Amino acid sequence: MSELEVFWGSGSQPAWAVQLTLEVKRLPYVSRLLSFGAGDLKTPEFLAMNPRHKVPVIKDGDFVLYESIAIMAYLERKAPETPLFGRNAQETGLIWRAISEFQQYLMPGLLDNVVRPIYRNEVEDKRQAIEEQMPLVHAELSLLEATLAKQPWLVGNQLSAADLLIFPYFMSLMRAATRPAAASLPLGMLPLTETYPALAAWVARVEAIPGYDKTYPPHWR
Amino acid sequence: MSELEVFWGSGSQPAWAVQLTLEVKRLPYVSRLLSFGAGDLKTPEFLAMNPRHKVPVIKDGDFVLYESIAIMAYLERKAPETPLFGRNAQETGLIWRAISEFQQYLMPGLLDNVVRPIYRNEVEDKRQAIEEQMPLVHAELSLLEATLAKQPWLVGNQLSAADLLIFPYFMSLMRAATRPAAASLPLGMLPLTETYPALAAWVARVEAIPGYDKTYPPHWR
Repeated sequence: MSELEVFWGSGSQPAWAVQLTLEVKRLPYVSRLLSFGAGDLKTPEFLAMNPRHKVPVIKDGDFVLYESIAIMAYLERKAPETPLFGRNAQETGLIWRAISEFQQYLMPGLLDNVVRPIYRNEVEDKRQAIEEQMPLVHAELSLLEATLAKQPWLVGNQLSAADLLIFPYFMSLMRAATRPAAASLPLGMLPLTETYPALAAWVARVEAIPGYDKTYPPHWR
Repeated sequence: MSELEVFWGSGSQPAWAVQLTLEVKRLPYVSRLLSFGAGDLKTPEFLAMNPRHKVPVIKDGDFVLYESIAIMAYLERKAPETPLFGRNAQETGLIWRAISEFQQYLMPGLLDNVVRPIYRNEVEDKRQAIEEQMPLVHAELSLLEATLAKQPWLVGNQLSAADLLIFPYFMSLMRAATRPAAASLPLGMLPLTETYPALAAWVARVEAIPGYDKTYPPHWR
């Protein structure tokens, strides 16, 4: 039986979501860590796998797949034990709803207007965009906080793909908030245990997943 | 057994995708056509179902769900005959990949920078954004065209959720292209049989789905 290869990059949120999925499902895989800076995603070999030159990509025998959501849905079908997309139709619907709302209402602005400008030390140029985005970020985080104040995971009492997908993006926001470049910004994120105690407890719950340490971005240590 | 209620609005792309899903799966439903202009999506009753005041929403007994993708995944699980999310793991992965790529690389720019400015008669103000977006739209449409030149549906030989989700957005682009407001724009879409013959054949294939006429936006006639 061929081994599952996973091509990822340190700090890639969608790659992290896939790695967490593999750990939760206890699926063994061969780790292929690529370097963005070294141009590993622009080689002919990589472009043949994903012409959009993004990670994650998986290779399972002859089958190549990219897009984190697609890989997670593939792994669910391939290894349905430890279901991450629901045990019945209602759970499935609510999990995809949580993912879809995150992708529409939180993720784009979070990445484009907050995380990337801070990572790239563009805070002075992008200060207005960051400050305009944060109320929208807080509005969405407050919805997640309200949910997690009532239940341990984003959908019901079971860990799901919604938790694993959203977690890495939330962690990049937390990392951005602690960067020196963010020191002058009133992000209102820290300390998390005070601003969003239920989200803080949720982060601790994800961090306790067996195998979590293997998925943590190496360059964040 | 309670009846499935579907709340939709004429011309809503995600609502149309859900209605097509219901027709393909031959699931009976009670149609609840709402009026955007009359404020039907801002009533307390509707906001109790979807606080984001968007359609589609379904009500299945006591269970309420919004977000088109989530509803489609729910219906797949509830009525797995006529599978729309793949018959095996590889098909499932490829269908979600097509959806994910569409949602990231085509849908946002298509709606924000082309379809809505034309629908809203804002062509003069938004001309530059429209003209900058169109090459990106054509790049993505060319990828779909290349796929459909080789096979009847976006993923393999079977109609899938990818076709049903992307179709209504593509139809709004086609409708925008024929609006008087678009007459002065070099959109490069018409006639579709010449610009994108495989997409034109695909549109005809979707239009031939039994029940299609019931899903066509009433105010487009």
